[in-house]
Amino acid sequence: MRIGVLNGPNLNLLGHREPLHYGTRTLADIEALLLARAEANGAELTFFQSNDEGEIVDWVQATGDRVDAWLVNAAALTHTSVALRDALAGSDRPFVEVHLSNVFAREPFRHTSLLSDLAIGVIAGFRASSYLFGLEALLRHLATGGETGTGKAG
Amino acid sequence: MRIGVLNGPNLNLLGHREPLHYGTRTLADIEALLLARAEANGAELTFFQSNDEGEIVDWVQATGDRVDAWLVNAAALTHTSVALRDALAGSDRPFVEVHLSNVFAREPFRHTSLLSDLAIGVIAGFRASSYLFGLEALLRHLATGGETGTGKAG
Amino acid sequence: MRIGVLNGPNLNLLGHREPLHYGTRTLADIEALLLARAEANGAELTFFQSNDEGEIVDWVQATGDRVDAWLVNAAALTHTSVALRDALAGSDRPFVEVHLSNVFAREPFRHTSLLSDLAIGVIAGFRASSYLFGLEALLRHLATGGETGTGKAG
Amino acid sequence: MRIGVLNGPNLNLLGHREPLHYGTRTLADIEALLLARAEANGAELTFFQSNDEGEIVDWVQATGDRVDAWLVNAAALTHTSVALRDALAGSDRPFVEVHLSNVFAREPFRHTSLLSDLAIGVIAGFRASSYLFGLEALLRHLATGGETGTGKAG
Amino acid sequence: MRIGVLNGPNLNLLGHREPLHYGTRTLADIEALLLARAEANGAELTFFQSNDEGEIVDWVQATGDRVDAWLVNAAALTHTSVALRDALAGSDRPFVEVHLSNVFAREPFRHTSLLSDLAIGVIAGFRASSYLFGLEALLRHLATGGETGTGKAG
Amino acid sequence: MRIGVLNGPNLNLLGHREPLHYGTRTLADIEALLLARAEANGAELTFFQSNDEGEIVDWVQATGDRVDAWLVNAAALTHTSVALRDALAGSDRPFVEVHLSNVFAREPFRHTSLLSDLAIGVIAGFRASSYLFGLEALLRHLATGGETGTGKAG
Amino acid sequence: MRIGVLNGPNLNLLGHREPLHYGTRTLADIEALLLARAEANGAELTFFQSNDEGEIVDWVQATGDRVDAWLVNAAALTHTSVALRDALAGSDRPFVEVHLSNVFAREPFRHTSLLSDLAIGVIAGFRASSYLFGLEALLRHLATGGETGTGKAG
Amino acid sequence: MRIGVLNGPNLNLLGHREPLHYGTRTLADIEALLLARAEANGAELTFFQSNDEGEIVDWVQATGDRVDAWLVNAAALTHTSVALRDALAGSDRPFVEVHLSNVFAREPFRHTSLLSDLAIGVIAGFRASSYLFGLEALLRHLATGGETGTGKAG
Amino acid sequence: MRIGVLNGPNLNLLGHREPLHYGTRTLADIEALLLARAEANGAELTFFQSNDEGEIVDWVQATGDRVDAWLVNAAALTHTSVALRDALAGSDRPFVEVHLSNVFAREPFRHTSLLSDLAIGVIAGFRASSYLFGLEALLRHLATGGETGTGKAG
Amino acid sequence: MRIGVLNGPNLNLLGHREPLHYGTRTLADIEALLLARAEANGAELTFFQSNDEGEIVDWVQATGDRVDAWLVNAAALTHTSVALRDALAGSDRPFVEVHLSNVFAREPFRHTSLLSDLAIGVIAGFRASSYLFGLEALLRHLATGGETGTGKAG
Amino acid sequence: MRIGVLNGPNLNLLGHREPLHYGTRTLADIEALLLARAEANGAELTFFQSNDEGEIVDWVQATGDRVDAWLVNAAALTHTSVALRDALAGSDRPFVEVHLSNVFAREPFRHTSLLSDLAIGVIAGFRASSYLFGLEALLRHLATGGETGTGKAG
Amino acid sequence: MRIGVLNGPNLNLLGHREPLHYGTRTLADIEALLLARAEANGAELTFFQSNDEGEIVDWVQATGDRVDAWLVNAAALTHTSVALRDALAGSDRPFVEVHLSNVFAREPFRHTSLLSDLAIGVIAGFRASSYLFGLEALLRHLATGGETGTGKAG
Repeated sequence: MRIGVLNGPNLNLLGHREPLHYGTRTLADIEALLLARAEANGAELTFFQSNDEGEIVDWVQATGDRVDAWLVNAAALTHTSVALRDALAGSDRPFVEVHLSNVFAREPFRHTSLLSDLAIGVIAGFRASSYLFGLEALLRHLATGGETGTGKAG
Repeated sequence: MRIGVLNGPNLNLLGHREPLHYGTRTLADIEALLLARAEANGAELTFFQSNDEGEIVDWVQATGDRVDAWLVNAAALTHTSVALRDALAGSDRPFVEVHLSNVFAREPFRHTSLLSDLAIGVIAGFRASSYLFGLEALLRHLATGGETGTGKAG
Repeated sequence: MRIGVLNGPNLNLLGHREPLHYGTRTLADIEALLLARAEANGAELTFFQSNDEGEIVDWVQATGDRVDAWLVNAAALTHTSVALRDALAGSDRPFVEVHLSNVFAREPFRHTSLLSDLAIGVIAGFRASSYLFGLEALLRHLATGGETGTGKAG
Repeated sequence: MRIGVLNGPNLNLLGHREPLHYGTRTLADIEALLLARAEANGAELTFFQSNDEGEIVDWVQATGDRVDAWLVNAAALTHTSVALRDALAGSDRPFVEVHLSNVFAREPFRHTSLLSDLAIGVIAGFRASSYLFGLEALLRHLATGGETGTGKAG
Repeated sequence: MRIGVLNGPNLNLLGHREPLHYGTRTLADIEALLLARAEANGAELTFFQSNDEGEIVDWVQATGDRVDAWLVNAAALTHTSVALRDALAGSDRPFVEVHLSNVFAREPFRHTSLLSDLAIGVIAGFRASSYLFGLEALLRHLATGGETGTGKAG
Repeated sequence: MRIGVLNGPNLNLLGHREPLHYGTRTLADIEALLLARAEANGAELTFFQSNDEGEIVDWVQATGDRVDAWLVNAAALTHTSVALRDALAGSDRPFVEVHLSNVFAREPFRHTSLLSDLAIGVIAGFRASSYLFGLEALLRHLATGGETGTGKAG
Repeated sequence: MRIGVLNGPNLNLLGHREPLHYGTRTLADIEALLLARAEANGAELTFFQSNDEGEIVDWVQATGDRVDAWLVNAAALTHTSVALRDALAGSDRPFVEVHLSNVFAREPFRHTSLLSDLAIGVIAGFRASSYLFGLEALLRHLATGGETGTGKAG
Repeated sequence: MRIGVLNGPNLNLLGHREPLHYGTRTLADIEALLLARAEANGAELTFFQSNDEGEIVDWVQATGDRVDAWLVNAAALTHTSVALRDALAGSDRPFVEVHLSNVFAREPFRHTSLLSDLAIGVIAGFRASSYLFGLEALLRHLATGGETGTGKAG
Repeated sequence: MRIGVLNGPNLNLLGHREPLHYGTRTLADIEALLLARAEANGAELTFFQSNDEGEIVDWVQATGDRVDAWLVNAAALTHTSVALRDALAGSDRPFVEVHLSNVFAREPFRHTSLLSDLAIGVIAGFRASSYLFGLEALLRHLATGGETGTGKAG
Repeated sequence: MRIGVLNGPNLNLLGHREPLHYGTRTLADIEALLLARAEANGAELTFFQSNDEGEIVDWVQATGDRVDAWLVNAAALTHTSVALRDALAGSDRPFVEVHLSNVFAREPFRHTSLLSDLAIGVIAGFRASSYLFGLEALLRHLATGGETGTGKAG
Repeated sequence: MRIGVLNGPNLNLLGHREPLHYGTRTLADIEALLLARAEANGAELTFFQSNDEGEIVDWVQATGDRVDAWLVNAAALTHTSVALRDALAGSDRPFVEVHLSNVFAREPFRHTSLLSDLAIGVIAGFRASSYLFGLEALLRHLATGGETGTGKAG
Repeated sequence: MRIGVLNGPNLNLLGHREPLHYGTRTLADIEALLLARAEANGAELTFFQSNDEGEIVDWVQATGDRVDAWLVNAAALTHTSVALRDALAGSDRPFVEVHLSNVFAREPFRHTSLLSDLAIGVIAGFRASSYLFGLEALLRHLATGGETGTGKAG
């Protein structure tokens, strides 16, 4: 089980600036947490961060054949990138959408996502734990042949 | 740490009907999973399910003083109940909003929630795991003095 | 052929108050008319009226296994209850939506229904006859194996 | 009691093409069913079908003095014709709006009607039965001096 | 002169919780104030509070014949309950809409009311005094044969 | 306690024209009622009416230092005057917004107010009593150090 | 000076039906009034009325070379016909839009016109006089070389 | 027959500035034309122009008892003044709304009027002739006891 | 391969009027160009133009069995005719939508089409070439068994 | 005649992935088809594809002086890129907008384009043929001095 | 070079009240700063402030012939006055729109301006400096024959 | 005092192309003007221009620690880039938003900015002077400890 972990614009700043708002955990810290959890589950992770929509689309295209699923925190691109949506859809790989903060409690333009109707599910508001929950959900999804998520219950 | 677990209309049907859509897990199964996880963390759970908005508001009022946080799957009431919103806000207890399905991939009226801007965070689409992730998030939130969630990062 | 006949909030007042607006027929009168017609067709009816959304959802859940179809006048809940929509969809039984008055000639918020895209069809504006037509349509629908209704013709 | 039965654009195709979607009943078949039911009630029917808005308006004007009510399936014109609305209103005759299919389960532009707020009531989704219910409703309406339909109850 | 005093969801909490936000006056305190004022005016009051829309509709129906007017603080139901609107309209009794807080200075979903176009008038923002003003307005309205309120002046 | 009582365009006509619509009470009558009530409470009133937005803004500016609060019926300007909003906000004095009629039952453009989110509260629909209630509310507000109104309860 | 006078759907009914609403003047009466006024000004009139959009477009095309301007009461087509707009624009002849009734005091869908931004001007609400004013305006427009109408003043 | 002729902001500039846009006719010229036409019909005119909404409302109030109807070109106030609407409605005198230019071919905010649903009718686009037509329409309206305008025909 | 070529309202004027705007090519010229191209491809063309929606619907119905596909420039009807939409859909024949001008650079009401979601594709802005491209596209579509057009790529 | 051929995000995937949806033709295949057609017409092509908005804007700026026109399939950027719009407008070169699929039959957000009002025309839905038609249209446009496209005909 | 400096409602209060919010600079202080800057550039300034829209329109009309340009802080009238827009447009003099505060960071109704599409440019948020920048911009605009501002670049 | 000067897509073309629209000043010319002004004030400038949103976000992140404020002309990205908004907010440095042209007089999609509610202020329409005013405003803002801009005055 191989997972591509994608981080969008400005997430490279995590932990380096304004610890009050962003916490003291760096993106590297989060990646280390994810690696530990992945290792325990026999999964392999590939990380990518970029501030550039084009580079991200390139990476999704280039990486799609080498991963089984995506863990995606697209940050600002969540709300604006049809290109990323198309690239993820084109990869034909399931993905989970995660956010560090509770985007639904922030500005209105962060309440809509161009990705979430294509995702297995969405997790927002739990900082590093959002990633860990997302990873677990993906592993279970792959292990059970994709049975989680798209049911009709509330 | 005491958590009130609230389930809204129709969730009592889980596992009893249309296993194709709702899976074969009953609400009791999910509650058993949650209890096991809670016990392992020294937490106490109180469960409630009702199809009636008024009963749910009554329960939130009556239970608020005896729990430290809420795990809420309000189902259909997520989208229509100002009364539940007011009751949760009035309880002055943190809560996590969970959904079995990815509500963002369903009918448009399920894309807006009257609860999520008050929640610590939102988890949707992972069936029983949505609850487990939500429980874990609450326990961590309480353990760390509420430090998770409301930061400004993506 | 067993039909569950559901009446929503305020319909218990029919014939008891303001005969000018509501006519002199009580809900009991309408139920008697329906029973006569059902008997003539070898059908069995189960009646329920409540002013309470939760009680109605409970009844739909409890009754679903004992009926073959629903005749539904959800009154005010037609326009506001996602929970009733979910309960009817979850019952996996066909239903006809009826209204005593022509809801399309009343306030705009009565022009949209959370039920009608799931119904076999809609009948509005003929008072007691709306129920009788709806009953006939259901009986024919069940008798012909569900062939009525969802075609593409005008 | 004389009823003008109006059918709008493309309904002349019924039964002649795509039986899967439109059923095998022709418009003539439906008219025969209506005639039989009318005869049994001592009513007289006048039929008209056209694909042309102007012709339909002409016919409504020319026929208005010779009928007591209308049975109207305006098909596509339901949603676009202010001219038909004006013609029906100008005739000062009551009418029932019918549709073969459940228009509320089809494209959104079929969910609004320029006619229904003027009608006694609306019936949609029961194929030929929609017409028969509509005829019965009109006969009862005329027999009782117009007492059906416009009450305030749900 | 008999007045039915209706209080919606969560108002039973008044004075019992969060005195900072809700003040220290309980609902019982407000009812005592109203009783004193009513007695001074030879009026009789009937009180009801519920967190349940259905119970409230039941009460309005059951009480309608025994009161001359309503004093209504529907709380969260102000903004969502078509059923309460219908029940009040069906009672054919005048009512005044009151709110403890200035709802127009709170969240946007509290700026629209499903009741106020049917009310004699609206009073918002004066805590217990909102009720007292509302009671006085009703008494004057009944005493003068309903002459207050619906004029065209600013 | 000194209160500035402001009346907007066309209110000078009260009682002089169309008694059917505006009642027979003149603005002077209302002012006399207010004075009597003020005197009984040891309060002082300053009255102003104008049909001119500019004159009204001038008066608010000139009077602001000599009053403790405002009683405002801005009439037509309620819905159109950002300048009056700015003048009242700039005066740093609390105010109550009153209307003779129930503006929520009139034309839609009267349902929104540029003032009410800044007000202590709003009273609409009780003719002269709207003013008297407003005066009482202001006196109580000043007497209790502004404790009324902005709480979170329904 | 030759003027084409165009009347849209249902205007042939004028004076023949419901004199209370439509007055007792027939379209022929209006045409006689216009002819008298035209004769007095040395102008020539060509009349056309149809309930059929296609016939109207045909007539505008066929007549365009033989008139200098149009006097247009498009009735219901005012609000729906892009084809008539195109035909009038294609004729390269100025026109005045007239209405018997004050369309701005009727249903909202009559408040927008697909013609008026192309017209010299619009006259609504004066019955037969609307036509006479329109004719005069056209004659003056032609006499002065088109100087009327499109200035910037209020 | 006495008519009050009201001109709104900036109309005093007519003919004095930018003859290209506003024509060379001054407001005095238009008033002279109106006087000549009025004299010929035994009518009396009272003129008023102001750039100030308050002065205009004052004038409508002061003049209302001395005129039988209004001829109104409110210019910019057409689109913004609820106070003028209220003053005209309060005068209980019929009025015609006129515009020099075709407002429907200008900026979108000039396409809606706060006055026209109260007017007998609307005339736009014919410069000075708009006033003359409006005067004639008023005289005929008064002469025939108000029979013009509010019919249902197109 | 037989193609029905449909032209909507006002297209009969092409080349006969306003060559500056419409070019000097007549509809006959365009038809000649199409015939030459069709002949070279062994295809047969049937032409129809009308200003009448009803005639066009009649023609589509009557011709549907004798053609394999449609080339459609519905002109003004593109934006208003549900009847034409239904007729084309009912014919069960593929069609291409063409426009002489770039409709997306013209008035907003020309930016939406009631036909294009049913078409194989849309071509706008290339005058006679729009038709030629459309013809080629249809021929290729028929030759390849309909493989062109409905893919998901950009 | 030199044409710059621009392809936006994800179009590099053509033919390489999901042949069912995207066909088996690669972008290189399409470019070969275009080259053959260009050569036959003595035209020169320059190709560019990128998933990156910034790179695309750079290329348009760098290439603008060396081409006479653009053939543009902006894919996802069609709907979101003001920067590409500005770059194309700034190049002062005509362009044709093409799409492989019929974007008007896909998700609503693909129905609006930030480019098409600046284009000569739009072609959507014919896969590789969309490009060939677009190339032909550009060549004809350049050959005739830009005479195609912006006329007023339907 | 003569500049008319216009200040709208409530700006006379600057510096006299609430120094925390409005700063300690009075309008007279700002005028002194502007005079100094104007003198240094050989320009002449005329000042006007009023709380009255009508007075402001009068002043613009009366002053228009004696100035070469306007510096306008219309305050609340920015968002509501069509009359001021018309007066400025009618003066045929260029103007710059300035605001002390950053109106785009305040209430939504302050984000739209009825003036800015007619202005040379807009400056908001720099207190007294907004005026000084605006003055400089006007002087440069007049000195260079109006070359600044209306270009197409970003 | 160190200022980062940011220029968005297509601004590198300034002065090199279409001097009529963009003026003859290149971006280098503007930078020279800014440098001269900065030098005179003892300030240091860092310039960056890119057509690529990602590069711009990278630069803002990399440069944030080395500047005290930003001068931002984001061009097309002003209206579409949530990522740039986030980057500027994350830098915790004040910024001024400038535009060469008056964006409020151009296409509607240029009237909204994703940046301006976070800015100190906005300057639009004065070409190179927009930058110079912006620089001055920043220097004054830094010199006075940020006292300019966010007050409540008009």
